[in-house]
Amino acid sequence: MIKITLPDGSVKEFEQGTTPMEVAKSISEGLARNVISAKFNNTTVETTTPLKSDGSLILYTWNDKEGKTAFWHSTSHILAQALEELYPGVKLTIGPAIDNGFYYDVDLPEGVISEKDFPAIEKKALEIARGKHDYKLREVSKADALKFYKDQGNEYKVELIENLEDGTITFCDHDTFTDLCRGGHIPNTGIVKAIKILSVAGAYWRGNENNAQLTRVYGISFPKQKELTEYLELLEEAKKRDHRKLGKELELFTFSQKVGQGLPLWLPKGAALRERLEQFLKKAQKKAGYEMVVTPHIGQKELYVTSGHYEKYGADSFQPIHTPKEDEEFLLKPMNCPHHCEIYNSKPFSYRELPKRFAEFGTVYRYEQSGELHGLTRVRGFTQDDAHIFCTPDQLDEEFKNVIDLSLYVLGSLGFENFTAQVSVRDLDNPDKYIGSVENWEKAEQAIINAAKEKGLDYIIEAGEAAFYGPKLDFMVKDALGRQWQLGTIQVDYNLPERFDLTYKGSDNELHRPVMIHRAPFGSMERFIALLLEHTGGNFPLWLTPEQAIILPVSEKHEIYAQKVLKSLENNEIRALIDNRNETIGKKIREAEMSKVPFMLIVGESDEAANTVSVRKHGGEDLGAISLTTFTDLVNTEINSTLKSFKE
Amino acid sequence: MIKITLPDGSVKEFEQGTTPMEVAKSISEGLARNVISAKFNNTTVETTTPLKSDGSLILYTWNDKEGKTAFWHSTSHILAQALEELYPGVKLTIGPAIDNGFYYDVDLPEGVISEKDFPAIEKKALEIARGKHDYKLREVSKADALKFYKDQGNEYKVELIENLEDGTITFCDHDTFTDLCRGGHIPNTGIVKAIKILSVAGAYWRGNENNAQLTRVYGISFPKQKELTEYLELLEEAKKRDHRKLGKELELFTFSQKVGQGLPLWLPKGAALRERLEQFLKKAQKKAGYEMVVTPHIGQKELYVTSGHYEKYGADSFQPIHTPKEDEEFLLKPMNCPHHCEIYNSKPFSYRELPKRFAEFGTVYRYEQSGELHGLTRVRGFTQDDAHIFCTPDQLDEEFKNVIDLSLYVLGSLGFENFTAQVSVRDLDNPDKYIGSVENWEKAEQAIINAAKEKGLDYIIEAGEAAFYGPKLDFMVKDALGRQWQLGTIQVDYNLPERFDLTYKGSDNELHRPVMIHRAPFGSMERFIALLLEHTGGNFPLWLTPEQAIILPVSEKHEIYAQKVLKSLENNEIRALIDNRNETIGKKIREAEMSKVPFMLIVGESDEAANTVSVRKHGGEDLGAISLTTFTDLVNTEINSTLKSFKE
Repeated sequence: MIKITLPDGSVKEFEQGTTPMEVAKSISEGLARNVISAKFNNTTVETTTPLKSDGSLILYTWNDKEGKTAFWHSTSHILAQALEELYPGVKLTIGPAIDNGFYYDVDLPEGVISEKDFPAIEKKALEIARGKHDYKLREVSKADALKFYKDQGNEYKVELIENLEDGTITFCDHDTFTDLCRGGHIPNTGIVKAIKILSVAGAYWRGNENNAQLTRVYGISFPKQKELTEYLELLEEAKKRDHRKLGKELELFTFSQKVGQGLPLWLPKGAALRERLEQFLKKAQKKAGYEMVVTPHIGQKELYVTSGHYEKYGADSFQPIHTPKEDEEFLLKPMNCPHHCEIYNSKPFSYRELPKRFAEFGTVYRYEQSGELHGLTRVRGFTQDDAHIFCTPDQLDEEFKNVIDLSLYVLGSLGFENFTAQVSVRDLDNPDKYIGSVENWEKAEQAIINAAKEKGLDYIIEAGEAAFYGPKLDFMVKDALGRQWQLGTIQVDYNLPERFDLTYKGSDNELHRPVMIHRAPFGSMERFIALLLEHTGGNFPLWLTPEQAIILPVSEKHEIYAQKVLKSLENNEIRALIDNRNETIGKKIREAEMSKVPFMLIVGESDEAANTVSVRKHGGEDLGAISLTTFTDLVNTEINSTLKSFKE
Repeated sequence: MIKITLPDGSVKEFEQGTTPMEVAKSISEGLARNVISAKFNNTTVETTTPLKSDGSLILYTWNDKEGKTAFWHSTSHILAQALEELYPGVKLTIGPAIDNGFYYDVDLPEGVISEKDFPAIEKKALEIARGKHDYKLREVSKADALKFYKDQGNEYKVELIENLEDGTITFCDHDTFTDLCRGGHIPNTGIVKAIKILSVAGAYWRGNENNAQLTRVYGISFPKQKELTEYLELLEEAKKRDHRKLGKELELFTFSQKVGQGLPLWLPKGAALRERLEQFLKKAQKKAGYEMVVTPHIGQKELYVTSGHYEKYGADSFQPIHTPKEDEEFLLKPMNCPHHCEIYNSKPFSYRELPKRFAEFGTVYRYEQSGELHGLTRVRGFTQDDAHIFCTPDQLDEEFKNVIDLSLYVLGSLGFENFTAQVSVRDLDNPDKYIGSVENWEKAEQAIINAAKEKGLDYIIEAGEAAFYGPKLDFMVKDALGRQWQLGTIQVDYNLPERFDLTYKGSDNELHRPVMIHRAPFGSMERFIALLLEHTGGNFPLWLTPEQAIILPVSEKHEIYAQKVLKSLENNEIRALIDNRNETIGKKIREAEMSKVPFMLIVGESDEAANTVSVRKHGGEDLGAISLTTFTDLVNTEINSTLKSFKE
């Protein structure tokens, strides 16, 4: 008999050789129907693997990330079989699951796969799936494995196997198909009810551009057809909301070949939106006791040698800037923290003056390979809403709570309601990995967990995920399309205070080391605005949106009245503009709808006579003819419902 | 007889050989007493030079810049004589007049000159001056000139003479002293009534660090002892107002060796002050129809090749930034204009949409040699309050007026009342030097002059001072110490629109070139704040100053009331802080006075009872006990008297 510990802590006895699926069945038939993958003693196993010792077992369904991974990885075997059948002579290489689906990299004997071929591949794959074939893992000797692929003439798998140690090699069979595979499959192909080929792309063998070029076939699969349909709708919606597309349409930002890729140029409407976001945060930060500072965008190499950034990132970053006499070396700053440490060091502090909270909208530059650049989410220059809090270890608790308050305020004001927190703590089995005293680490981890608890966050604790220099808390935010973004890291740091020899005079009159907190509720202005664009589909909160109202005179006759309306709105600090083109009112309304301005104020004969505006909301709702005072109240009420003052 | 034209246009006849001094006498004895230098046909002459042909003559007195130059240059001869007498064997090199005084670079046979030697040098020099020796210019052959200095063993003068053409060599004698000299002297040493040696410094022969090191003796002289006294007082005051000293005392900014020299770090109070200045200008610019943009701090080298900046400054600037693969080259941006041109180029414009006015507080980086760095006035990174106006040639007139309005608003709001304008136009004798059509140049120059006239500026026109790419207007501002600063250039540019191929569609449906205006009312935030610190001695205008009030509780008992006062001031948007240290009220007042906070609010027994504050202004004026409402009104009244809205 063996003892199996389940996630709820319960321990059950089973005969040696019992499989995870049998354990599931012993719990309930319903669970057994849904279990598709398992982990035993922290290692992925098949649901059919006999368990031979005591241990802890986790059973996964489609609703778990690990379940999806097994599902998609298993579907990549089906895709491979389909490709072998449709493209005889195709050589398989690797086929992993990814965040959304899976791919398989293949070497086609001739020709290409293009979009028109997708339906045939999908059909063939689905046929295979419907055969309800079990996935069966078997161990093979290295010699047999090599022979199998040498006979096929597949030099890629041969290379993979040659790099494996003897005795660890497993093949996975289903139907007539066999693949080199470590494991992690669902029980049976029949669970896969819907398969979609999404795209093809070029890829180099092992990601090296000197190697052979392969064809990467991307796909996704689901246990229900309905889920695929929903996913494709989501994809379609995501395409519409792509921040690169919306950013262009709404004239927020642009890129220039001459300035350089990954270096956004903010157009007037985008720059004004950024400024509103910055002022919004500055106001809250002022209330929370932050002080703004301004530092240069370069620093001597020496500064980053001190901070450790040069050693870690120097070779892969923008290279040093020399001066004409070559006697000095500067770097574009990849982070603001070293500069803020130098500000802290510019005068002595007593414990009574702490915490010091230095904030800066600091633009930093980091080299990204051109292939990895993506709109505003992956850029080479971006502005962090950065701040560094320098405090005593005893103040950490309070400071952490304050930062969480500020982060929640930011998320709430911008319409993000769906988020969790992830607390990253030490790996207690590897205490030497970490800088700083055990006492301080315990204090800091406890401070974070207490704060998360007290603030009512939905949080999980990830052991071993802390950086070597301190524990942290990340907000994981779900956008309107259900995609998850990491926003608003709060990071404790024991390292930089050491490296910069930061001190404060304690009540004992001795010098002590302060603790540092790095935090950025937006993260970067660029990435945040991209996320906000995709989350809102360009329909920004009313307080933030470029124009709040557009005045549409029905004809030229009403232009003077339209100007009067504009003036009145401006006096009430409502951002508005007039569409006084010589176009029909219908066309003006359609285009205003496209431009996502929240309110259209149509002004015609009767409006001018009654001193009103006819208000139509973006989306079509008709509010009828109302006075400007009523309209102003309406705008202010809507703004005040989403945008509260911090700590009101 | 020769015809002499005087500056007022009048023409008088004199015998050939008449000297400028004789011309002065013919006008008035008073003028003759004051004339110390002259220019004939645009060439500097002695007042004793016989005039041999028709020509135009300008006579200068001490009140003219040219008069001072002659005065100080002449005094450098006296200094040289004094040094020869006090330091036998000293070798003279060059001794020019500078902006404030003069210097002489000498090679001392041994020892050094230090501050304790200054009185002896001054005494000797004054003795010589009092001898009332005439300055007498005489021509010598090159051979005689060389022999004179070879006999002395003075290799420096020999080198200078060897580089001169034959027949142009003149010596100047006075008393027993002779110097190689081109001319430009006052009539007689007796006019010099006060001489002060200011400092000594090291200097290399011909400014080349591979040459011999010389001793540079700086001095200044005046026609009246009183003027020297006033000047020394001014120097003393300037030392007190040195922005580097005040910046440190007021905790506005700092520098860090690790970050790098010439790269200011703005501390919280300085950053907040900068932010207020920026918001002040942003508000006015918004009213004036500017749109903010945001651009990165780097750009591809290609961008600056296009703009021409690379060719012009590349070698002497921060060197290119390479990427790890070395396949891209970026430069720190020395100017914002290329980025703004790329923004303009990101979409097509019609004449109806112009002018476009793109503004940015853009931080730029320019390499300055470390020896040339000076506080905030000469730095390696600074933020320009930059804007570029893209307009049609016909709009130039109106735009120029608008920019002048904005500049005058900025100067006025910050207490600069003493300024002139300098209009730089083409050199009509060298039309080929300039880019852009003659028609456009005429239009632009006329636009600037019209605007200056219409706005009532006190302006001068400087022919030949325009850049090759367009005419400009500079504001020359006098600070409280009478020193002149160049602020607020408004520059027309025909060059960048060509280089970036900027266009707009005209009413004729054809593409045309817009004109660009560069302008920056502050110039740079760093230099402007330095100037403001020195102009105000750290007593900033009330709307701008870091803290407007400091609350001084007489004892601990009144701290709660002090907090109440603070809260009330904050609610009224008055920036205040409390000095709740356990110090005597006398000490608190003295230190508050040092920190230049405009208002001290002393709160004690009677104040708390009567709900008042006892107000003492910076400088000592006692306003007695008043209510907080009265105090708030007082502050707002003072602010509103200096800070109006733009175009109110």
